[in-house]
Amino acid sequence: MSAESNGEEDLRPARRPEVAGAIRVRVRYCECDPMGVAHHAAYVPWLEMGRTELLRSSGVSYAQLEASGVFLVIVKLGMSYRRPVLYDDVVEVRTRVAKAGRVKIEHEYEVVLVEREVGSLTGRLAGMAASAGIGEVLASGMTVLASVDAGGNVCGLPEWLVGS
Amino acid sequence: MSAESNGEEDLRPARRPEVAGAIRVRVRYCECDPMGVAHHAAYVPWLEMGRTELLRSSGVSYAQLEASGVFLVIVKLGMSYRRPVLYDDVVEVRTRVAKAGRVKIEHEYEVVLVEREVGSLTGRLAGMAASAGIGEVLASGMTVLASVDAGGNVCGLPEWLVGS
Amino acid sequence: MSAESNGEEDLRPARRPEVAGAIRVRVRYCECDPMGVAHHAAYVPWLEMGRTELLRSSGVSYAQLEASGVFLVIVKLGMSYRRPVLYDDVVEVRTRVAKAGRVKIEHEYEVVLVEREVGSLTGRLAGMAASAGIGEVLASGMTVLASVDAGGNVCGLPEWLVGS
Amino acid sequence: MSAESNGEEDLRPARRPEVAGAIRVRVRYCECDPMGVAHHAAYVPWLEMGRTELLRSSGVSYAQLEASGVFLVIVKLGMSYRRPVLYDDVVEVRTRVAKAGRVKIEHEYEVVLVEREVGSLTGRLAGMAASAGIGEVLASGMTVLASVDAGGNVCGLPEWLVGS
Repeated sequence: MSAESNGEEDLRPARRPEVAGAIRVRVRYCECDPMGVAHHAAYVPWLEMGRTELLRSSGVSYAQLEASGVFLVIVKLGMSYRRPVLYDDVVEVRTRVAKAGRVKIEHEYEVVLVEREVGSLTGRLAGMAASAGIGEVLASGMTVLASVDAGGNVCGLPEWLVGS
Repeated sequence: MSAESNGEEDLRPARRPEVAGAIRVRVRYCECDPMGVAHHAAYVPWLEMGRTELLRSSGVSYAQLEASGVFLVIVKLGMSYRRPVLYDDVVEVRTRVAKAGRVKIEHEYEVVLVEREVGSLTGRLAGMAASAGIGEVLASGMTVLASVDAGGNVCGLPEWLVGS
Repeated sequence: MSAESNGEEDLRPARRPEVAGAIRVRVRYCECDPMGVAHHAAYVPWLEMGRTELLRSSGVSYAQLEASGVFLVIVKLGMSYRRPVLYDDVVEVRTRVAKAGRVKIEHEYEVVLVEREVGSLTGRLAGMAASAGIGEVLASGMTVLASVDAGGNVCGLPEWLVGS
Repeated sequence: MSAESNGEEDLRPARRPEVAGAIRVRVRYCECDPMGVAHHAAYVPWLEMGRTELLRSSGVSYAQLEASGVFLVIVKLGMSYRRPVLYDDVVEVRTRVAKAGRVKIEHEYEVVLVEREVGSLTGRLAGMAASAGIGEVLASGMTVLASVDAGGNVCGLPEWLVGS
C-alpha cells in the first residue's frame, strides 16, 4: 500500500531511511529525579527522538508523514535499565529497525554513555554510577509501532518506509 | 536483611502492604500529544503512582523508605498499548505484586477506562478511541524494581515489604 | 459572541462556572528534581488543572469547549516560588478568575501545603523546606488565556463563561 | 563571598561566563499538546537549558556548581507567548544575564524560530502559526534565581559568576 492511498499528499522521499542511526542527547535537569539520575520515564522520549531522526534520513519527516495522513502509534514498549544516567551526561541513542511488516515496525535502541563530568558524581547513588565507562550501554529498549490513518484505522506502512 | 541494617531509621510499618490496589488518574492536557491522546511516556508515571500507593497501604510511604536508606530503582519496564487514552479521561491504574524476591520486586498493571466524556471524541484518532467501553483495559504494563542503598549498592528489600 | 458562532455545537452549561475553586495534587516522584523538590516546570500543569476544574464547575469541560471549536491558548504566565514543594507533599491549588474580558481571561493561583510527612525531610534543601507549615502558601502564579477558533484566529470567549 | 566558602571544593573556572548565548532545541513530539503546538510548560526547561549552557561557557558546569555546594533555586518565572511553536520546529533560545546581585541572578530569554517544515502546517491552529517567519521571536521569558547552600540557606553567588 502506498502513502498515496493513505492521505491527501503523495510523499516522495529522497531515499529509503537508514536502518540504523544515532542521536546525542544531553540529560536535562528536569529529566532527573530525587536520586539525581534520569527518571526512567525520561528515556521514552529519547527513543522517540531516535526513531524520528532515523525516519528523517529518508528526506521525509514524521511531521510530513502525519500531514500525509499516516500516524505511527505505539503498541509495545520495553526497557532494560542497567546503570543510571546522570544529570548533564551526554548519551547516544542508537536506533535500528529490527523488523518491518505490512503495518508494524519494530525498533531496537541502546543508550550509550558518551560524556560525563567526574565532578558531578556527588549525588545519591553515585557509587552505582561511578563505574560506568564511556561507550558503555546504560540502557536498552524496543518499541513496536503500528500505522493508522487519521480516523485511527490500521493502514499499511508506506512501502518506501519498510522496503518491498 | 531488615530495613534496620540499611538505614538510619527503623521503619515500623503498621501492616504489610496490600498485594493489589487501584488509583484513579484524570489525564492532564499536557500529558496528551498532537494525536489528542495520552503520550505513551505519560503512562509510566501512572504506574509509579500505582505502586507508590500500594506501598503506602502498609503505613510506610516510599518517601519514608528512601529516608531510611532504601531506594527502589527500576531495572525493567514493559508496556502494551491497546487503545488510546484520551485527554480528560479518568483511568484506574490497577497494580499488583506479581513476584517478590530478596532484592527485586515485580509489579503488573492494568490501565482501565472509568470515565470518558463522549463530547470530547472529536480529535484525531477518534475512531480508534470511540469503541472503548467503560471498564475496558486500555493498556497493561509490568516493572521490575531492585533495592539499593544510598551508595547505589544492591541491598535486600525490607522483609516486611516482601513477606518472609 | 456566543459559543454557537464559534463551533459546530451549542454548549449549554448547567450554570456559570465558579469564580474560585481548589484542587489537591500529590506531588509525583517524576515531578521532582535532583534537589529533591518539585521542579519549577512541574507547577505549570497544576495551574492548568486548577483552571480546568474551575471551568468544569459550569457543567462544561474544557474538552467539550474545544469540541465546540473554542480553544484557550496561553499568552502570559507568571510564577513566584517562595518555598520548595517536596516529593509526596499534597498541595492545594487555589484558583480564581481575576479578570475576564471579551477575548482574554486572567486567573490567579496559590499553591498551599496541605499534607507533608516529616519523615521525608531528609533530602537536600531540607532546611529550606522544614519550616513550612500546613496552610502556608508555597508558590503563587497567574496566567492570561486568549480565546481562539480552530484556525487559530482570535474569537470571543463564550458569554456564559465570562459573564455579560 | 567566594565559592570556596560555600562548598567543599574550590571551583576554578577558566573564564567568566558569557553574558549572552544561544542554544538550539528541536521540539519533541511529547512536548506538544492536542492543539499540535508545544505545551506552554515545555518552554520552561528550554530556558533552563539556555542558562545552563551560558554557565558552561565559564568552564564550570551547573553540575559542578552543585557538587561544590552551591544550588541555584528559582524564585520567579515570567513567560509571554506570542505565537505557537510547532512540533519539529527548531527554535533558538537566546539567553542573557539581565541583572546579577549578591545572591540573585536574573536572566532574560527569547525563543526564536529558526527552522520549520511548511509541510507540517496541517494541525489545529495552523492559521495562527502559519504567518510566523524565520527569525521571529515566538516567546520571551525571564527568571530570577537565588543561590542557596546544601541546607537550603541563602548564600552568596560565587563572585566569578557575577562579577565583582
